[in-house]
Amino acid sequence: MRQYAFGVDIGGTAVKLGLFQTDGVLLEKWQIPTRTEGQGRYILSDILDAIRGNMNTRNLTWQDVEGVGMGVPGPVTEDGTVQKCINLGWNVFNLHDTVRYLEPGVHKFCVTNDVNAAALGEMWKGAAQDRGSAVMITLGTGIGCGIVENQRIIMGATGAAGEFGHLCINPEETEPCNCGLRGCLEQYCSAQGLVRCAKRELARREDTSSVLRVVKELTAKTVCDAARDGDALALELLDQLGHRLGWALTAIAGTVNPEVFVIGGGLANAGNILLERIQRNFRKYAFHAFRETPLILAQLGNDAGIFGCVRMLL
Amino acid sequence: MRQYAFGVDIGGTAVKLGLFQTDGVLLEKWQIPTRTEGQGRYILSDILDAIRGNMNTRNLTWQDVEGVGMGVPGPVTEDGTVQKCINLGWNVFNLHDTVRYLEPGVHKFCVTNDVNAAALGEMWKGAAQDRGSAVMITLGTGIGCGIVENQRIIMGATGAAGEFGHLCINPEETEPCNCGLRGCLEQYCSAQGLVRCAKRELARREDTSSVLRVVKELTAKTVCDAARDGDALALELLDQLGHRLGWALTAIAGTVNPEVFVIGGGLANAGNILLERIQRNFRKYAFHAFRETPLILAQLGNDAGIFGCVRMLL
Repeated sequence: MRQYAFGVDIGGTAVKLGLFQTDGVLLEKWQIPTRTEGQGRYILSDILDAIRGNMNTRNLTWQDVEGVGMGVPGPVTEDGTVQKCINLGWNVFNLHDTVRYLEPGVHKFCVTNDVNAAALGEMWKGAAQDRGSAVMITLGTGIGCGIVENQRIIMGATGAAGEFGHLCINPEETEPCNCGLRGCLEQYCSAQGLVRCAKRELARREDTSSVLRVVKELTAKTVCDAARDGDALALELLDQLGHRLGWALTAIAGTVNPEVFVIGGGLANAGNILLERIQRNFRKYAFHAFRETPLILAQLGNDAGIFGCVRMLL
Repeated sequence: MRQYAFGVDIGGTAVKLGLFQTDGVLLEKWQIPTRTEGQGRYILSDILDAIRGNMNTRNLTWQDVEGVGMGVPGPVTEDGTVQKCINLGWNVFNLHDTVRYLEPGVHKFCVTNDVNAAALGEMWKGAAQDRGSAVMITLGTGIGCGIVENQRIIMGATGAAGEFGHLCINPEETEPCNCGLRGCLEQYCSAQGLVRCAKRELARREDTSSVLRVVKELTAKTVCDAARDGDALALELLDQLGHRLGWALTAIAGTVNPEVFVIGGGLANAGNILLERIQRNFRKYAFHAFRETPLILAQLGNDAGIFGCVRMLL
């Protein structure tokens, strides 16, 4: 009986691992560093070593393990080909084949984009339980978007489904985005985008009395905290973010019409002060047939990915 | 052996019907008028009478028929509930149950939105054959959008997947859209939207020497014909349409990342003069991971719907 499964969420600095029972109970979670040197060639070996180490400690063999599910920070196609993971140093290769080569004992292996995995995790054990479809939006350094429809992740023809953060919302933007384009949604609505907008406004307005001018370090959190304390500039920045993101979500709703939007990522820790602004603008711009789509906060935090990775296997 | 199937595409003025072999050969197609009086209560009876009449002529019984697939001009949820079809007079009801009640002999019955059906038809026997996923955009009175992913139609939580024509692209717009909002994509990029924009420009510019000022009837076709003849205003109007629509398709690509976009509907008859403008702007704004998504013209014309309706059954 295969009663166990491993979920592996690979990030740019750490790999999160989880040992689960196949009924969804998380037995143990831990992290290992992500070794990006040598174009990331040690990452998979490190992960498999960590898993084998855990299995040894528990006297498990591959006969006991249903499989390994993996989330990676980049586009992945249905056949398991990683398109490119800049943060890991990885170029294009088939992760499926590579894992089978490095560890032939693995029974099942699945891989998807990390945000897709998080979406599936939230639908399994988090904010979107018992929903048939959901779109997860993560607001972190960039903007991630994972889409689950009919309990299935939509990966896209080139693995780029949910690469929504690079929608151009301002062709007049002068600063380039990481992707080379200008005016991408994530230049405004990610955690990093919020800080960028805050700095720009502070530079532009000489007379503002905002506390943001005197905080030690300007971060998305300091902006949200200042807004909660009633700082006018911080509130205006959140208004703008809510306006842009709320509108942008209507484009996603008009495409896949999910049962629910789940908002996660570091910036979502701001909670309702941000969520209500996104929701208000979503409703303002949404077509009536999906105007009432709920927007809710993610619940699993950093564990969403490992939950989703295991869900994929089952 | 059930060797036959019926495809039924219900439009606001006519219902298109097709008798197919289950291998996809269209044996016969015909139309009946759509009787919208009495809140459209005769439409389904008329359709079933037409089908039974055809079967009698051919000495077929329901034992010979795999099923009936239907496309309707409005949102439909997975369980067959029509959300509302303004053009037919229909309110909310379950079409599945109603058809089974009116004709218990039907073996299989499927229903979806008409543009979804057209998308599936183009993937089966039209422009997008052998593709795993496609997004079909129809540019007619409004803008329709049908999404097929992994050979499955995405219908959406409230049947509103693909209701993309009401994405707000200009909050400053003063004229309302049919939907009650202002600045919807289809106010600019549908056939009717093109005419609206042309009229507005003609009213705004007193000095234009455009032939559009003297055409007998200003239609999307006269604008496209004038553009083909080099009329500066007509070309500018198509440039604007291509710019708006090309950009808008990047939002769909960044959500579901289809293998191909299929452009259909009456306005698509303009052909390459329109397609190249949409494509150029799509490429300009698209994220690199889906920048090369092909945009192609639909091939099945008005038959796409009946093909797709039958494809659904099989």
